[in-house]
Amino acid sequence: MSSFAQTDRTTLKRLPARGTYDRETVYKILDEAVVCHVGFSVDGQPYVIPTGFGRIDDKLYIHGSAASRMLRSIEDGINVCVTITLIDGLVLARSAFHHSFNYRSVVVLGTAHAVDDSAEKMTALHTFTDHVMPGRWQQVRIPTEAEMKATLVLCLPMEEVSAKIRTGPPIDDEDDYSLPIWAGVLPLSLTPSEPVNDPKLNPGLEPPANVKNYSRTH
Amino acid sequence: MSSFAQTDRTTLKRLPARGTYDRETVYKILDEAVVCHVGFSVDGQPYVIPTGFGRIDDKLYIHGSAASRMLRSIEDGINVCVTITLIDGLVLARSAFHHSFNYRSVVVLGTAHAVDDSAEKMTALHTFTDHVMPGRWQQVRIPTEAEMKATLVLCLPMEEVSAKIRTGPPIDDEDDYSLPIWAGVLPLSLTPSEPVNDPKLNPGLEPPANVKNYSRTH
Repeated sequence: MSSFAQTDRTTLKRLPARGTYDRETVYKILDEAVVCHVGFSVDGQPYVIPTGFGRIDDKLYIHGSAASRMLRSIEDGINVCVTITLIDGLVLARSAFHHSFNYRSVVVLGTAHAVDDSAEKMTALHTFTDHVMPGRWQQVRIPTEAEMKATLVLCLPMEEVSAKIRTGPPIDDEDDYSLPIWAGVLPLSLTPSEPVNDPKLNPGLEPPANVKNYSRTH
Repeated sequence: MSSFAQTDRTTLKRLPARGTYDRETVYKILDEAVVCHVGFSVDGQPYVIPTGFGRIDDKLYIHGSAASRMLRSIEDGINVCVTITLIDGLVLARSAFHHSFNYRSVVVLGTAHAVDDSAEKMTALHTFTDHVMPGRWQQVRIPTEAEMKATLVLCLPMEEVSAKIRTGPPIDDEDDYSLPIWAGVLPLSLTPSEPVNDPKLNPGLEPPANVKNYSRTH
């Protein structure tokens, strides 16, 4: 349970100390991220597309229009890479060379397949909605039969998975610590501001608590 | 000057109204983003890796250790896709089906090459540093000859480029507007919090104004 198996393709060659294969760590990064980046190749040209996603145990679900070129390509069972990245801060060192980011990222390699079973598809759609906004599924009109048909859901079993994390202050060269240069970390996070009502909102409706008190970190 | 040429590979097949090829729009998205996602294939397996970048006119620069597997692979002149994504908000509709994101993204297709000329390399490193933190290059120790050698810089000419943008409120089905469900947008942005001093900071040094007043939007 505790760790994903390392493979040659997921083993970090450089700075291996930043790598982890721990399930809970991977889950936490996935659950905090709003979007993922899906990589796939068509005719030798890689494409990288941002999209929403959901996770159930060790399965990653992505979805979109049944007309989407990306999803249609992937549905054929080609290899994909799904990468999830959280930017936690700018690492400002005394030398340009040692500037870096604090970040947490996950790379999932595998082959995605279309989800045809309608119960699994509905569960996946539930997961997408609640991934973006926990509790939202209970608040909205759920998909009709026709909407289900218009939605292509793909499942990527998380078999080859690695996470990479950098935290903490800059690491400068010993000689540089005496330089009169400020160094440190500027933390960054994806932060909500006040909800904006739909201009067509019926009078008297207020944003629910999950919208008003939204936070990606738990 | 005003627009990138559309190619078959960069022409949006679905929702073409969300696509744009306007240079100023593309530049603005690139300049606001902290990282990009680089996609490339090795032995038929796509990889997507988050990394810092810089832009000079129509050239995108990425860099990293000369030992990096990603950069070594790309250096050979294989096709890459560099995608830049800004998440601007959650679009919360009355139906699960019409949930979406407000976002701005750019996709650049092309072939990257290594930058060997030391003047161009130094200019690129300057651009990386100031992309992350405007004005930082003037505040820090610039790279030595040895650091320059340890850094691999790649240039991706921005020839095939497209941007995709969604803004505004949710678009619901006509019948759903009467439902007693709150709908609207929850804006999101990558926001700095207070700078954290390096624990090894020399006494008396304060974060400079560019760190204290940092914002990705200009």
